[in-house]
Amino acid sequence: MKSVFKHPLSLTLMASCLLGAGAIAAPANDPATLAQIRDSAMKNDWAYERLADLTDLVGPRLSGSAGAAAAVEQVADAMRKLGAKVTLQPVKVPHWVRGAETAELVDYTGRPAGVSQKVVLTALGGSGATPAAGLTAPVIVVRTFEELKALGDKVKGNIVLFDVVFDQQMADRGHAGPAYGRGAAFRSGGPKLAAEMGAAAALVRSVGGANFRIPHTGGTGVVDGARIPAAAVTAEDAMLITRLSARGPVKMHLTLTPQSLPDADSFNVIADWPGSDKADEVVIVSGHLDSWDLATGAHDDGTGVAGAMAVVETMKKLNLKPRRTIRVIAWMNEENGTRGGRAYFDANKDRLDKHFAAIESDSGAGRTFGFFGSVTPPMVKYFAPLKAALDPIGAGIFERRDIAGATDTGPLERAGVPVFEPLVDSSSYFSYHHTPADTLDKVDPLELKRHVAVMTALTWYLANMEENIGRTLKLD
Amino acid sequence: MKSVFKHPLSLTLMASCLLGAGAIAAPANDPATLAQIRDSAMKNDWAYERLADLTDLVGPRLSGSAGAAAAVEQVADAMRKLGAKVTLQPVKVPHWVRGAETAELVDYTGRPAGVSQKVVLTALGGSGATPAAGLTAPVIVVRTFEELKALGDKVKGNIVLFDVVFDQQMADRGHAGPAYGRGAAFRSGGPKLAAEMGAAAALVRSVGGANFRIPHTGGTGVVDGARIPAAAVTAEDAMLITRLSARGPVKMHLTLTPQSLPDADSFNVIADWPGSDKADEVVIVSGHLDSWDLATGAHDDGTGVAGAMAVVETMKKLNLKPRRTIRVIAWMNEENGTRGGRAYFDANKDRLDKHFAAIESDSGAGRTFGFFGSVTPPMVKYFAPLKAALDPIGAGIFERRDIAGATDTGPLERAGVPVFEPLVDSSSYFSYHHTPADTLDKVDPLELKRHVAVMTALTWYLANMEENIGRTLKLD
Repeated sequence: MKSVFKHPLSLTLMASCLLGAGAIAAPANDPATLAQIRDSAMKNDWAYERLADLTDLVGPRLSGSAGAAAAVEQVADAMRKLGAKVTLQPVKVPHWVRGAETAELVDYTGRPAGVSQKVVLTALGGSGATPAAGLTAPVIVVRTFEELKALGDKVKGNIVLFDVVFDQQMADRGHAGPAYGRGAAFRSGGPKLAAEMGAAAALVRSVGGANFRIPHTGGTGVVDGARIPAAAVTAEDAMLITRLSARGPVKMHLTLTPQSLPDADSFNVIADWPGSDKADEVVIVSGHLDSWDLATGAHDDGTGVAGAMAVVETMKKLNLKPRRTIRVIAWMNEENGTRGGRAYFDANKDRLDKHFAAIESDSGAGRTFGFFGSVTPPMVKYFAPLKAALDPIGAGIFERRDIAGATDTGPLERAGVPVFEPLVDSSSYFSYHHTPADTLDKVDPLELKRHVAVMTALTWYLANMEENIGRTLKLD
Repeated sequence: MKSVFKHPLSLTLMASCLLGAGAIAAPANDPATLAQIRDSAMKNDWAYERLADLTDLVGPRLSGSAGAAAAVEQVADAMRKLGAKVTLQPVKVPHWVRGAETAELVDYTGRPAGVSQKVVLTALGGSGATPAAGLTAPVIVVRTFEELKALGDKVKGNIVLFDVVFDQQMADRGHAGPAYGRGAAFRSGGPKLAAEMGAAAALVRSVGGANFRIPHTGGTGVVDGARIPAAAVTAEDAMLITRLSARGPVKMHLTLTPQSLPDADSFNVIADWPGSDKADEVVIVSGHLDSWDLATGAHDDGTGVAGAMAVVETMKKLNLKPRRTIRVIAWMNEENGTRGGRAYFDANKDRLDKHFAAIESDSGAGRTFGFFGSVTPPMVKYFAPLKAALDPIGAGIFERRDIAGATDTGPLERAGVPVFEPLVDSSSYFSYHHTPADTLDKVDPLELKRHVAVMTALTWYLANMEENIGRTLKLD
């Protein structure tokens, strides 16, 4: 109760007394409370500590792994300790396990006797397997789908490499997402097309800006029936193969032995921090708990999960009670199936009208400039007080978008629930995400604080808004 | 002969005619010839093409490997094609072969059941081996030799990690070499000390500025009798182990299975481009042909070798005949034994007076600012015309040093032969060198041209100087 008497605004105190609660409730979104949330978050290491627990103690968390199971327990425990009401929502997830992955160029024009060139690569999630001893086949290099299609029957039995350069300049100029999308299209669609055309295996150039010979994994569109071996080679190795192909035919020996096991049992972690007068309405704040297996998923998406968790920790510490229920969700299986987001939607599709808004953070914790969200244009003006509160930490930008386009909240958004995300500098995000280098040391503790300040202030604001922000634009 | 008539200086033409040679000879170092060399090099792709042949076709070239043998043949062939007199000088080299290398943290405080953390590492050259199934031991983290020594008997049976941070700021401020030296001291001395104290294995934090979870190999000082397993972990993994150690004891399972085979037969490639009136004197221009096995050794030291080779190509193309003999040397075994430099010295120690000077390039082909060399102070003034010729390409700096300190020419220098090196920006050199990322794409073709321009002009200048530049300072 101490914090109540410290609070500067008598109105807030009055509201608290009227509600008879131990915590401070409405008036929603008074500037002093928003400032208090912001300043508290900017001094708080709690989110970083949770991120350290998640990445250092659990580590990689691919769906179906022991790490993913441990992460569910760890996050649920931490939220229970805060006093949140925790539910584990069952989710059946794909269970794909990486195996051996080696490759070498065993023949090419100009190759000296006894020499071969090692290729650094990593299997894509869902990749099929080669024989245990590997396969040997010529490599065909293409840069577009059309180029591959034009080859027709010549593709049969070959290894196809999509050597598509990641446009780092585009990322540096503020369009990292579209740059990534352009490259990722080949990762998701390339192996599938190659499989349909009878290729022995498919390789893509790593989608990302790193130039330290590290591979960048990710999901691919290969499916049972045409599940060919599929891997990402590093940018360096893609360039090598392309240069050697310009000299003449190139032959590769490729070994990939991942396994696609039966679906596994897992969970979304859902932690509710109950509201007051509008407790039946929820504001989701979320990140995804699973990660790729190559690293500890610090930026992708440890920062999203830790940031969402920290919203409740700040509520508790500042003794704040929201009007609407704040629902923290640590989604399972964003990376290779999006089963968690789908399971939540399926279980809640009859009560979407009670979902006021959803926040999802999944672009890492680079410098946070503000937030964006998929409300309709007339709603933008209602966010002025929140913008004003975040301006002092340089995070007061609000970009309205027709679609936020996040993954786990995608089904909710497409059904009309406005979705918000922190607006971050992600120019270097794709140099690390999905690679072995997405580790705790890449997260700047100060930037994480700013990130959490935005997430917390935004969540609180949405949970307490007087105005009804309605639904997303109907685009169809 | 065409080029003779194109030459602007009648003096040069006269000298050529006086000598009766087909090639242009003295007057040494007239400005027009230096300018011609410089401008020709700045337009020439020949060195880059040789670098591409070496890195793309041969690839890694660790002493004793098939790649090293192929590189000897490739360089010798190219020099013979130019018309140089090629000698293969036999060198017995260490033959160390990398094996399996994996590690994981199998226990630590806060570890969830079923979880372990993978550690990315690579064996150091000369490392001993663990049992094939690996060994499991607690990890002790230290940051200095003194800290380790103070632990005394507690070290026995443990895995020692030297977690020494590479000072990238120091490198960025122009002191990359000393920054590297500071870290490399632990790589060379750490495993040896740990072995003497009874450690089960020794790990060092990778020496270099990369933050993409790539390991940085290199030689180590372990020797037969105390050849414990020794590896470099990535910066990220060193930080992880240190953080986990702060929580409590950490146990690692480590598997390293390199082999130390009997010494192998290899060669220095020596290619002479004969001089005219002082043909019995030589100016060496050199780089080392061997590389570490993780990458294709583009910067380290493909650029040095290709640059040295290109000196002769420019002589030939411009129809220039030096007064002293230009001796291109592609040294063998710089990385893990320096046997090539030693063999050359041993074979030539009675004719050091005929070694006018030696150039060695082994800092990659970052932006080249000029050159440095170990002449005595009174000699500096004689280089003014060379500096003036290189100024127009921003490469006219000459730094006199008491010792150049290069590796393969080290024995020559210590015996009095002045040694020169290109002066390059090596601030990012140690982010790549000795890692899997030292590949052709890291070499900027324009910077390589500037590098070759400096090497060629410097070689020509030294080969034709009228002044005697004497010997190095006697420092003992």
